[in-house]
Amino acid sequence: MGKNMIDELMRQITEKNAPVVVGLDPMPAFVPEALINRAIEEKGETLEAAAEAVWQFNKAIVDAVFDLIPAVKPQIAMYEQFGVPGVAAFAKTVEYCKEKGLVVIGDVKRGDIGSTSAAYAAGHLGTVTVGGKKLRGFAEDFITVNPYLGTDGVKPFVDVCREENKGIFVLVKTSNPSSGEFQDRLIDGRPLYEIVGEKVNEWGGDCIGACGYSAVGAVVGATWPEQGRVLRKLMPKACILVPGYGAQGGKASDLTDYFNSDGLGAIVNSSRGIIAAYKQEKYAAFGPEHFAEASRQAVIDMLADINSVR
Amino acid sequence: MGKNMIDELMRQITEKNAPVVVGLDPMPAFVPEALINRAIEEKGETLEAAAEAVWQFNKAIVDAVFDLIPAVKPQIAMYEQFGVPGVAAFAKTVEYCKEKGLVVIGDVKRGDIGSTSAAYAAGHLGTVTVGGKKLRGFAEDFITVNPYLGTDGVKPFVDVCREENKGIFVLVKTSNPSSGEFQDRLIDGRPLYEIVGEKVNEWGGDCIGACGYSAVGAVVGATWPEQGRVLRKLMPKACILVPGYGAQGGKASDLTDYFNSDGLGAIVNSSRGIIAAYKQEKYAAFGPEHFAEASRQAVIDMLADINSVR
Repeated sequence: MGKNMIDELMRQITEKNAPVVVGLDPMPAFVPEALINRAIEEKGETLEAAAEAVWQFNKAIVDAVFDLIPAVKPQIAMYEQFGVPGVAAFAKTVEYCKEKGLVVIGDVKRGDIGSTSAAYAAGHLGTVTVGGKKLRGFAEDFITVNPYLGTDGVKPFVDVCREENKGIFVLVKTSNPSSGEFQDRLIDGRPLYEIVGEKVNEWGGDCIGACGYSAVGAVVGATWPEQGRVLRKLMPKACILVPGYGAQGGKASDLTDYFNSDGLGAIVNSSRGIIAAYKQEKYAAFGPEHFAEASRQAVIDMLADINSVR
Repeated sequence: MGKNMIDELMRQITEKNAPVVVGLDPMPAFVPEALINRAIEEKGETLEAAAEAVWQFNKAIVDAVFDLIPAVKPQIAMYEQFGVPGVAAFAKTVEYCKEKGLVVIGDVKRGDIGSTSAAYAAGHLGTVTVGGKKLRGFAEDFITVNPYLGTDGVKPFVDVCREENKGIFVLVKTSNPSSGEFQDRLIDGRPLYEIVGEKVNEWGGDCIGACGYSAVGAVVGATWPEQGRVLRKLMPKACILVPGYGAQGGKASDLTDYFNSDGLGAIVNSSRGIIAAYKQEKYAAFGPEHFAEASRQAVIDMLADINSVR
């Protein structure tokens, strides 16, 4: 069994002074044409070519930014859309990031009835047994989990986290515009996301790391600062994974209350703001051929921005 | 563009007199040892061996039952746990079932913010573009979708359904014991699952097939007959996918009100009750070497049971 990953995440955040995570969500529109064309020349107009372009894109960005950041968050949908070759590129990206010493948060948003959640947990965080061997399907350090099915859909993930010293982030209040449609509905006068937040606190109660934070964290969008403030207090031991900064509209000044007074307790994600930085006017001078250097500069700028508020 | 799949599903249900779906959820404990050992002999103690055993298991069952049933529902977690080779076995199973003329419901329970749901929708129900070609990642006819993120997390799936003549089943009231933890909480005096059910009715309003049912269906567990009755009326045009029959405790007599007065409108899933039938005392005489024949008999018995109540 490896390090306790919530401790490792907090250690790297502190050491690199960087409570940020880079979202490796390689939408086709973000990948420079030259990479796509080269992959198509080699492999034809195939899913394999798309997967190869995605992998080359990720590798260049990771090589350019890994020393600045504690963690990456590949969004599996962006790989899964390219079928089996895409999923293989996801697995390769996870492995490569771990080799570079990064904490890997698989943004998979899985969640099902107990026996099925147990299979997802084994596949993404734990091991499966084949004959006499224990093998790993995928090998993220953390994954995101959807709570709609309740405790018995989440518990199998928590159990594997405890066995493997890994962690999860449970969706509580998501960053998207219509997240309030169900999540904000009042139950006994309190919004559903608070009820879910209380459960997160409970689920994570007996897997608190040496760092003081739990292996069971929460997803709370940067786009909801007032809700973030309430949830921070409801889940004092949860690390909050914060999507929605940048492209989705969340600003650093909105994020002050997502952090605890120790300046820790939150990790802010940026995906397109970093990986597609070369497409922004601000970084256009790098040009598409230097997309990875543009990403590095975007990380440096994001760090300054986020660190100004905590 | 192919047939309208909700029409095709209803056509096959009527023609085969079989409102049932077989859940291809090949948990390792269900796969006969002989199949596992043969795969390990060929491929060693590897993920590839596990995936091969799963594929051989599925193929034998599909060959034994395809003429009796309209649809299968592979649960992707049971494949995903074996990593990339497992996901390849999922893709192969989907393809094979389609070749056999079956409607394939991918039980993937995906759902995310809009742009991410769009990628899942493209990968499972639609196409991705590589160079000048449109390619399919996976190729299910229907998938299951988690609604926790609200309309903008579900809409991309509905849009692709309309373009591709495919369909989804949205989780409304799940079959697991703790489904009520969030789903039953009262909002303005009504449980959350009813609020979600109303949205399902709304999301599916403009993709009603010639059969009278919508491409947007709902998941309602067999374990909640009273809730099923209410939801049937709230979502008159939705086909209800009903898990939880058999092993999870749902009985045929609980299911009467999941069907509309036309005897249609619901499709009842059984997974382990069919694919692991050879492990039940009732079918033990078949022996593990005739597991697929045991599955066929279990389908015949399930059909008689379900058809007795509609």
